[in-house]
Amino acid sequence: MKMQDRATVMLEALPYIQEFHGKTILIKLGGGVMEKEKLLDSLLRDIVFLNNVGMKIVIVHGGGPEVSEEMRKLGKKPKFVEGLRVTDEETMEILHEQLAGKLNKEIVLGINKHGGRAVGISGMDGNFIRAHKLRYKTTTSKGREVEVDLGFVGEVEQINPTVINYLVGTGYIPVIAPIGIDGEGHSLNINADIVAAELAAAMHAKKLILLTNVAGVMRDPNDEKTLISVLTVDEAQKLIQEGVVKKGMIPKIEACLRAMQGGVERCHILNGTTPHVILLEILTKGGVGTMIERGK
Amino acid sequence: MKMQDRATVMLEALPYIQEFHGKTILIKLGGGVMEKEKLLDSLLRDIVFLNNVGMKIVIVHGGGPEVSEEMRKLGKKPKFVEGLRVTDEETMEILHEQLAGKLNKEIVLGINKHGGRAVGISGMDGNFIRAHKLRYKTTTSKGREVEVDLGFVGEVEQINPTVINYLVGTGYIPVIAPIGIDGEGHSLNINADIVAAELAAAMHAKKLILLTNVAGVMRDPNDEKTLISVLTVDEAQKLIQEGVVKKGMIPKIEACLRAMQGGVERCHILNGTTPHVILLEILTKGGVGTMIERGK
Amino acid sequence: MKMQDRATVMLEALPYIQEFHGKTILIKLGGGVMEKEKLLDSLLRDIVFLNNVGMKIVIVHGGGPEVSEEMRKLGKKPKFVEGLRVTDEETMEILHEQLAGKLNKEIVLGINKHGGRAVGISGMDGNFIRAHKLRYKTTTSKGREVEVDLGFVGEVEQINPTVINYLVGTGYIPVIAPIGIDGEGHSLNINADIVAAELAAAMHAKKLILLTNVAGVMRDPNDEKTLISVLTVDEAQKLIQEGVVKKGMIPKIEACLRAMQGGVERCHILNGTTPHVILLEILTKGGVGTMIERGK
Amino acid sequence: MKMQDRATVMLEALPYIQEFHGKTILIKLGGGVMEKEKLLDSLLRDIVFLNNVGMKIVIVHGGGPEVSEEMRKLGKKPKFVEGLRVTDEETMEILHEQLAGKLNKEIVLGINKHGGRAVGISGMDGNFIRAHKLRYKTTTSKGREVEVDLGFVGEVEQINPTVINYLVGTGYIPVIAPIGIDGEGHSLNINADIVAAELAAAMHAKKLILLTNVAGVMRDPNDEKTLISVLTVDEAQKLIQEGVVKKGMIPKIEACLRAMQGGVERCHILNGTTPHVILLEILTKGGVGTMIERGK
Amino acid sequence: MKMQDRATVMLEALPYIQEFHGKTILIKLGGGVMEKEKLLDSLLRDIVFLNNVGMKIVIVHGGGPEVSEEMRKLGKKPKFVEGLRVTDEETMEILHEQLAGKLNKEIVLGINKHGGRAVGISGMDGNFIRAHKLRYKTTTSKGREVEVDLGFVGEVEQINPTVINYLVGTGYIPVIAPIGIDGEGHSLNINADIVAAELAAAMHAKKLILLTNVAGVMRDPNDEKTLISVLTVDEAQKLIQEGVVKKGMIPKIEACLRAMQGGVERCHILNGTTPHVILLEILTKGGVGTMIERGK
Amino acid sequence: MKMQDRATVMLEALPYIQEFHGKTILIKLGGGVMEKEKLLDSLLRDIVFLNNVGMKIVIVHGGGPEVSEEMRKLGKKPKFVEGLRVTDEETMEILHEQLAGKLNKEIVLGINKHGGRAVGISGMDGNFIRAHKLRYKTTTSKGREVEVDLGFVGEVEQINPTVINYLVGTGYIPVIAPIGIDGEGHSLNINADIVAAELAAAMHAKKLILLTNVAGVMRDPNDEKTLISVLTVDEAQKLIQEGVVKKGMIPKIEACLRAMQGGVERCHILNGTTPHVILLEILTKGGVGTMIERGK
Repeated sequence: MKMQDRATVMLEALPYIQEFHGKTILIKLGGGVMEKEKLLDSLLRDIVFLNNVGMKIVIVHGGGPEVSEEMRKLGKKPKFVEGLRVTDEETMEILHEQLAGKLNKEIVLGINKHGGRAVGISGMDGNFIRAHKLRYKTTTSKGREVEVDLGFVGEVEQINPTVINYLVGTGYIPVIAPIGIDGEGHSLNINADIVAAELAAAMHAKKLILLTNVAGVMRDPNDEKTLISVLTVDEAQKLIQEGVVKKGMIPKIEACLRAMQGGVERCHILNGTTPHVILLEILTKGGVGTMIERGK
Repeated sequence: MKMQDRATVMLEALPYIQEFHGKTILIKLGGGVMEKEKLLDSLLRDIVFLNNVGMKIVIVHGGGPEVSEEMRKLGKKPKFVEGLRVTDEETMEILHEQLAGKLNKEIVLGINKHGGRAVGISGMDGNFIRAHKLRYKTTTSKGREVEVDLGFVGEVEQINPTVINYLVGTGYIPVIAPIGIDGEGHSLNINADIVAAELAAAMHAKKLILLTNVAGVMRDPNDEKTLISVLTVDEAQKLIQEGVVKKGMIPKIEACLRAMQGGVERCHILNGTTPHVILLEILTKGGVGTMIERGK
Repeated sequence: MKMQDRATVMLEALPYIQEFHGKTILIKLGGGVMEKEKLLDSLLRDIVFLNNVGMKIVIVHGGGPEVSEEMRKLGKKPKFVEGLRVTDEETMEILHEQLAGKLNKEIVLGINKHGGRAVGISGMDGNFIRAHKLRYKTTTSKGREVEVDLGFVGEVEQINPTVINYLVGTGYIPVIAPIGIDGEGHSLNINADIVAAELAAAMHAKKLILLTNVAGVMRDPNDEKTLISVLTVDEAQKLIQEGVVKKGMIPKIEACLRAMQGGVERCHILNGTTPHVILLEILTKGGVGTMIERGK
Repeated sequence: MKMQDRATVMLEALPYIQEFHGKTILIKLGGGVMEKEKLLDSLLRDIVFLNNVGMKIVIVHGGGPEVSEEMRKLGKKPKFVEGLRVTDEETMEILHEQLAGKLNKEIVLGINKHGGRAVGISGMDGNFIRAHKLRYKTTTSKGREVEVDLGFVGEVEQINPTVINYLVGTGYIPVIAPIGIDGEGHSLNINADIVAAELAAAMHAKKLILLTNVAGVMRDPNDEKTLISVLTVDEAQKLIQEGVVKKGMIPKIEACLRAMQGGVERCHILNGTTPHVILLEILTKGGVGTMIERGK
Repeated sequence: MKMQDRATVMLEALPYIQEFHGKTILIKLGGGVMEKEKLLDSLLRDIVFLNNVGMKIVIVHGGGPEVSEEMRKLGKKPKFVEGLRVTDEETMEILHEQLAGKLNKEIVLGINKHGGRAVGISGMDGNFIRAHKLRYKTTTSKGREVEVDLGFVGEVEQINPTVINYLVGTGYIPVIAPIGIDGEGHSLNINADIVAAELAAAMHAKKLILLTNVAGVMRDPNDEKTLISVLTVDEAQKLIQEGVVKKGMIPKIEACLRAMQGGVERCHILNGTTPHVILLEILTKGGVGTMIERGK
Repeated sequence: MKMQDRATVMLEALPYIQEFHGKTILIKLGGGVMEKEKLLDSLLRDIVFLNNVGMKIVIVHGGGPEVSEEMRKLGKKPKFVEGLRVTDEETMEILHEQLAGKLNKEIVLGINKHGGRAVGISGMDGNFIRAHKLRYKTTTSKGREVEVDLGFVGEVEQINPTVINYLVGTGYIPVIAPIGIDGEGHSLNINADIVAAELAAAMHAKKLILLTNVAGVMRDPNDEKTLISVLTVDEAQKLIQEGVVKKGMIPKIEACLRAMQGGVERCHILNGTTPHVILLEILTKGGVGTMIERGK
């Protein structure tokens, strides 16, 4: 490429760099990104770039597939109730090892490799994600409401972002494993989308980005042409009520709505497997995936 | 116990509380302490106590037995060369899971349960322990010096304690897994005693405490009556040279000497399985274990 | 005592040390404590202990008996109107000498001797206790309300705790003589209980402790068995209205009520001559004396 | 251009953005750049870009041609002695108007237009460039050394960069007119290259960039093919001594040498009329112009 | 003068020095003061004195006569519409040169000469005075309202005093040329009295002083005996409505009213040509000129 | 006096106000000043003035006459050994009362009355003047050196001016009673001139002013015409050696020499009973008393 064209490309990013300077952007890593080494590496480099041109980046990561795989290795069958992982003591130990240990540090190493400075912690550290056991209720086929014991599955009670704020304020990129802690010092497994949304709210983030393995919110999940580029909060709620949005997408949209209710400006649901998807979403004119905004 | 006696006990601790107020004490957890749940719980409560009466506490933990056990579970045989664990890629993954994941968070949870505020990180986080691969040399039976490839085993290059200083300065107890990072973003397995010693030096700690499973430095390892209560730096060096100190104790004493050369005032080698050993060592007149001091 | 028992005693204090960590506790010294050298020495050591395990301590001291004694020495008869000392110019000079001079520095020396760092000042210093002359009214035997000139007796107008906050924030223990200053630069004699209560309110103290020479609030002042351990604000007010509480105890309870109205959480009326009374009240389960709390 | 190519261009700049993050870069605007509106606009946008991706930028500007033109407009003939402008009182007034007034604010407006935040001041402001009258000596044709009165031409005595440091530290871009002040409050005209060099030294800048209207240092000024890409300090000094470098280029190289002696890492002499010359020099692999470095 | 009398004079200023210690006083220089070199010098020395005894001084200066004179020199006729200067591009250039260049730096030099530390900037710098083009409407002789294009004449939109606060907070005296900047980076000519008033409001100044060339507000502009010493806000508004105050004085009073509405405590309209008028107004009992105060 | 003359007087003080702005001036009150109410009041107002125009003032006061008088009142005979007060326990109590109590607070009240903000403390407070018992040796008539027990008379060991620096840094005027504290918490009586000199050195004061009841250093103490206006350090030492300076003046000059050795710039010995002596010395051209300076 010619030198002058290089300059042109960079300068076209200037307004976006200015807009997001010093702003907090919370990125939920997931959607199969973490299983693909090259993809993750590329993604983390993009994140380091955004951090280095002035944005405050916080990463929350999931790790469901790795945990399930590890369970199967150990001869244990993963069990889910409506998408929530039933978490007995042994499973929790695996979560500590896989989420707070293996995956968390893998992301940290990937960021540091590209010249970023990541610090990996979990919600247990410094008690920063206070949680309590989720009292999960469901309705039996006979219409009776019953409580199902999901084990050590938690619900966010309160987030104290002091340490996280210190870290982003001094240029670090916090990488957070979604495990909370209760008042007695027990760890609890929490949905990563929810942790990302709650933390985005607690930090008054400007943007929450949820990476998935689909193009965004689609009217017909099998037809990418039905992708909805922009949704207002009201429209998003309506899509859920009318049943247009289904299954796995529902909790993601609900996480976005929670974040926006907490003051986050915009939420994005993007396909993490598209190369440079975050970089392009933030630094170029063309939007990708689905953006949820406050609406008029 | 009578109320007045309670007051007396507390007041006798006053001079020690004053002496160590605001001072940094680096504690290396090891020596089988971590395998015994009750012991660990009691120890962590003592640590929270010391922190709450004004000391800055930093914990570095090992975890050798747990790692070996996990390796065996996965059908992998732990291999050591003169006490150093040969660390291939798979072993490193286990270290991430067991040290940075399971054990680190277990200690964090234990501290938080007693009202402390622990933050668990590793030397990879924020690149805070810079290391390079250890070039390990040994002498063959024929007297030739050869280099042995120990895999991802590291040597501390530089420690940047900024984040750790922030944490202790705001009342947190950092809990550190001894894994370093090299310039290319690879993790390296480092001996926990060495990490503790180097960090103590980098933080200008007042005390370094190494917990082991023996009473301290003994002239005859099988006879507790030969325990040496106080050693000067010179005496310690002589004991090594003369071959009085053997095997597992040598690296511990060397770690102490390294710490003292870096400015640490006193080092202690204590039996971690003695109840309340740290509390009593720091807050009462009677010393236990072996103390290494600068000498006249 | 056995070493392990020592550890147990200390650890039982842990929850209380945590509860009051960084909190401000205002202690009014009085009730004959200051006349007894040994008692005072022991009390000040306890106070240094509390300070050293993390509490912010502020002391306000009285000194009535010493002042009266000095007056008698100089051939001057102390005069009181309903417990308030009539203060002419000469008496005020004696107050400067005895309160701000002799007693204040005696307490400072006692604290410093035990390794604390006390700074003794009065409400005149830095104009920190603004006051005006008390316009004292009483009712004659014929039922007419008349104003009695008590001389330089003051009423707190405003407290500016900036310097005191600086001192406690940097680890000092301020020791305060209860003499205020008016807009023209005249000093005024103020009741020490009131100064303690107002200062506790101005500093948002967690606790106000008034040391007296009786066990606490008693239904029958001659019968310690009628001691009331816990009083709500409402109950305390009722006790005064119903005339159960008498004479010297009324201003103490009123001081407590004033403090609590200003945001102080709990007030204690304790017998200062009981050995280690403050240490035991704060650091052990068993309460002594009378505690006034907000009530449901 | 394809989206992915855009990402590639940006990511290739990442190592340079990291290298210069938080570093001070001092840019001397000159060389005819300021006369060409479009060129200046483009240059200032590049500068805003560099500032927005994390660099601290300070601008020193000249303005010789504008000053001379204004003088001619007012019927006054510019006079120079070996490149130094003879500055009488009237000329100084024109300098105030043209440099500190017109040109300075033109640059400020240009930066602010692109979203930067410039603050334009001169060395008179806050007394920040202390100077004294230059005692200029020259040699007559008969070999006698005589002093020539150049009027209000100054020599830097001391630079106090406190305000400038504050400005760059809070994200502003200081734009500085090269007029100093003496101890009696008189303003003095100082060579802009020298001001840039001295300020770069006083601020411990990482880079000093002098914009000229030629490609860089050339062995044959008429042949761009003789451009020297890299010069060590020693080589630069030799080039001057051997007379290879001539006239206008000598003071520029001397300014660079002065800056490097004061601790600046690298100096660049670039052609300011090449589009995006600074952006490309700093953010891409390919160097342009002449770079002076410390040498081995 | 006798030494003791000197002491007396100084001590009589003490209450005023105490009253204005650390307070912000905004002074609008104008009214012909700037044309008279000696007068300006004396005035600036007084200002340095006030600054040195503890007041925070901010100066806003006009410069109408100088601008007009310069225009005439360049063969351009100044044009005004109801006191507002019609400002085409060429005039704006002259404003940059004369206001931001010549006059601003003249004041800066004058202050620095007397040992003060002035920093001269304009409202363009750091975008600190945001403005937009004034949409000026007038009524034709036929009673039709028409909009008149005054060119680059601006109206204050928002003032961000961060840099100014930094400067006064560190002991500098900011000297401000009344030129604002719009969102596109164009400069706009704004009335200096208005800038002074708006800035006084934005900085919560204690006093705004407008220097004019008349004694103050007079019922009969030709008779100094009709000077009004004190005006309340209400009275001032009434004087305008009733037509007592005329022409040039109206915008000055309106500026004062604007400042007071923004929280400024008192405004003064003084004759700048009276020697030491500001010093005497602030530091002695006797008031001069007209003071506008809030009224009961 | 005419208004303009008032301005002239104030402006003549400007260079001195600038010179001493933010500088620390340590004033030792003594020499009979404190016995004369009006004189003291006037002096304290002058001190408040100096403080309010920007100087940092610290006061150390003596109080010998008051202490002796009080002793006599209590039927106790003051005893001196070569000017040092023999201090038994009872005398020390009187010192606490008279110095730290009565006199200290009298000065505090006097300053506060004039709008200053004084904080009165002693060297015991915060342990800020560490001292040990003076081992006083003298020579008997038979030429034998013997140690004389002076009781609780101290010698400065170390001064920690942290609290004093905080106070002057926030605008307070510290007023210090010259009583030190030893390592065991006993108070010690120290010469006020020495305390002033040591504190001036510890604070890097610019000036030390010792107020006495004579005009300064005189060749013939009975002839004011022999007053020496300026002395270098060398000259001062010579005057002592040659016996020109006698008795009471010797310790004053030695205190000055001690201060200057510690970095104080200039010391003054002034007659405190001359009205406004400090104000005139600092703010006018004419010097009074004796100034000791470093010499060439």
